[in-house]
Amino acid sequence: MKIAIIGGVAAGTSAAAKASRENKEAEIVIFEKGKDISYAGCGLPYYISGVIKERNRVVINTPEEFSLKYNVKLMIGHRVQEIIPAKKMLKYKTSNSDKTAIYQYDKLIIATGARPVVPSFPGIELENILALRSLSDADKIKKIVEKDELKKVTIVGAGLIGLEMVESFKRLGLEVTVIEKMTQVLPGFSKGMARIVAEHLVNMDVTLILNDGVKEFKGDKKVRKINTIRGGELSTDLVLLSVGIKPNTELVENIDIKLGNSGAINANEKMETSIPDIYAAGDCAESRDLITGKSVWVPLGSTANKQGRVAGGNAVGGNYKHKGILKTGITKIFEITAARTGLSTVEAEKEGYNIMTKTIKAKNHAAYYPNSESVYIKGIFDIDSGRILGAEVIGKSGVDKRIDILSTAIYSELRVEDLFQLDLAYAPSFSTPKDPVAILGMVAENIG
Amino acid sequence: MKIAIIGGVAAGTSAAAKASRENKEAEIVIFEKGKDISYAGCGLPYYISGVIKERNRVVINTPEEFSLKYNVKLMIGHRVQEIIPAKKMLKYKTSNSDKTAIYQYDKLIIATGARPVVPSFPGIELENILALRSLSDADKIKKIVEKDELKKVTIVGAGLIGLEMVESFKRLGLEVTVIEKMTQVLPGFSKGMARIVAEHLVNMDVTLILNDGVKEFKGDKKVRKINTIRGGELSTDLVLLSVGIKPNTELVENIDIKLGNSGAINANEKMETSIPDIYAAGDCAESRDLITGKSVWVPLGSTANKQGRVAGGNAVGGNYKHKGILKTGITKIFEITAARTGLSTVEAEKEGYNIMTKTIKAKNHAAYYPNSESVYIKGIFDIDSGRILGAEVIGKSGVDKRIDILSTAIYSELRVEDLFQLDLAYAPSFSTPKDPVAILGMVAENIG
Repeated sequence: MKIAIIGGVAAGTSAAAKASRENKEAEIVIFEKGKDISYAGCGLPYYISGVIKERNRVVINTPEEFSLKYNVKLMIGHRVQEIIPAKKMLKYKTSNSDKTAIYQYDKLIIATGARPVVPSFPGIELENILALRSLSDADKIKKIVEKDELKKVTIVGAGLIGLEMVESFKRLGLEVTVIEKMTQVLPGFSKGMARIVAEHLVNMDVTLILNDGVKEFKGDKKVRKINTIRGGELSTDLVLLSVGIKPNTELVENIDIKLGNSGAINANEKMETSIPDIYAAGDCAESRDLITGKSVWVPLGSTANKQGRVAGGNAVGGNYKHKGILKTGITKIFEITAARTGLSTVEAEKEGYNIMTKTIKAKNHAAYYPNSESVYIKGIFDIDSGRILGAEVIGKSGVDKRIDILSTAIYSELRVEDLFQLDLAYAPSFSTPKDPVAILGMVAENIG
Repeated sequence: MKIAIIGGVAAGTSAAAKASRENKEAEIVIFEKGKDISYAGCGLPYYISGVIKERNRVVINTPEEFSLKYNVKLMIGHRVQEIIPAKKMLKYKTSNSDKTAIYQYDKLIIATGARPVVPSFPGIELENILALRSLSDADKIKKIVEKDELKKVTIVGAGLIGLEMVESFKRLGLEVTVIEKMTQVLPGFSKGMARIVAEHLVNMDVTLILNDGVKEFKGDKKVRKINTIRGGELSTDLVLLSVGIKPNTELVENIDIKLGNSGAINANEKMETSIPDIYAAGDCAESRDLITGKSVWVPLGSTANKQGRVAGGNAVGGNYKHKGILKTGITKIFEITAARTGLSTVEAEKEGYNIMTKTIKAKNHAAYYPNSESVYIKGIFDIDSGRILGAEVIGKSGVDKRIDILSTAIYSELRVEDLFQLDLAYAPSFSTPKDPVAILGMVAENIG
């Protein structure tokens, strides 16, 4: 049995590892056009900032290590050019020559990932305008930071990655400006919660420009200035583009595979695409929203890992499922952590739910125990069924715990009155006798 | 309407606060035999150790503060002597005299709490042998530590509180010995997990004696020696008894109220006892085990708070419920945190479940991000239904999060295959792409 996997980062290597564990005889081949595999995409901001000191720490497995661990053939630097499903055939370009070669597969896993959106602003071709996606992107940014005498950096886009990079650049001693077209940071969050993060950014000496965008980049060879849509002018030595990503689907453009509304590949919970024996996994694939049941594209590392594993297990004859996602996300920005799960208010309303939202502020642990901090939780509830539809949590400590409790509660289709009933662990250094999640439930039940 | 509450700590004050918020006209009276109300019982080890510096920090509300916040009459130092349900009457002794007075109630909430078990060892009457339960117990211990020239302290019993006090006494510079009759510390945990805690104690320079107990205390006025059952002799300057607690049910001994097997008061999910218009809440009352449906006695501060709130709300005509407990508990011992929820293996087997247990070791967050630590999770699963019955988590960081995810999962009756599907928040500083909880699920599903 021959398993071909296109792409060797999170989903691709998870798929290969799982397939090789389940079937020792299968020939498993990863085609990776880049030179790195299996690196920790989510760790790159910390590698750039120096929080993670050594490059090899963000490389989960080098090709050599991966080959030692798993019975997988790595075709590093080999770019697949064409998929021919009718013949179960791949055409690929070898790394050292322009020769095209052919690989015959029994099962194919597409794990081509996603890439940054690069808007066609005038001046976009100037040097020192970069996006962060791959390890080599991180290498480039790190090199510029080390070699150029940078003073000012501008981050275009205030999403999760953009804001993580704020901290990275500040740690490197740079002056940081964030410019965001929307009227708030963290577009996935509600305005009130995002405001807490925005205030924190400003307090950390970041220049924050909301409701404005890039009109043009200017400079000689290197970018030096940004003219904004609303007429502003910013001087800058480096620009990080963080305005979104799009799925890498070029390889499937000319084959009759079902894509979702997002443009990413549609796959069922077994990660099977519409073409027999072809699976898709990771950032190039959609997932099922566990609340609405709809196919959505929310590329995240945790999902990619799971989908890869499921695709790999199924490719060698297993019966694995990835039921779906709640779009749970978390980011740390200096001392503040912001997390979300489930539907946002906007999404819930669009889905036709009759919603109620409640926001509470509580202590992450007993106020009398040292270092207690406030945590804000917003819950979004369906008035008709009482079901918890979504949540946002922001604070300095204990945010990850509360979002995971709420994510588990939403997965389990719990209702507002269940939050008070949860038997969460209490000791003064971990929580309050009534945990903030229970308090959210009490307030939402309107039992005061 | 007249609401009488006997006991003014966690459950009593929660009940009073809730009742007074729900009914502004009701006369609400708390009878508290001691001199303190509303203190943080779980904070006392930290008050003794000096982690919490000021006494008033562990007093959530002084009587004066409580009276200002709520329309509640506080009868501090007034001991109820008799409950006469047929007449809806309490007899109580006033604080300043030997006079007995009478209070006529419409609804009564019994929140008399629990007290330490004091075994009848020879020499038990010696000075410097104490238990820790109330704020005044803590005051006494603190005073001895400050005045006497202590060197050695012995803790009898290696349960949650006993081990919390190990850290407190070590912080105070004392030599600490723990003696435990069982063959392991933390009797609620499985042997393998408890061993990790035991090793940590020994590494922190604690003398740990398992499988032995106190035979006799010796000393002049003050305790100086312990003779053990197995013939050992320990010198000691202070003994902390931590061998369990028992419910304070003297007041109901002569009335026809239903008690549970534990001896604590039986109450339904509305906290109603078998006698109309009498509620019970907190450490004197049993709870429903959410898995077995049986009435159990597991007194904990978080449960007391919830039960008090439910009893108080219902006493003034509301319709509140406390559905039950999973016996979730957590304790921090130096750098290690140990937590449990649901049924233990012993309990699950006793209930007739056909169980499977799996223990995993994983990183609390991405290994490449600074300060990652190992976390051990043991899951107990029902083979027939796949349901998660219980869990234990031990580690240096992220333990509280995993036990709360698992507690929420058990509450929700999730099954082994759900753990992989949970959409938990991932960023390198908070978790791994597959959270330890997901890894437990994968291993338990035997999908490797």
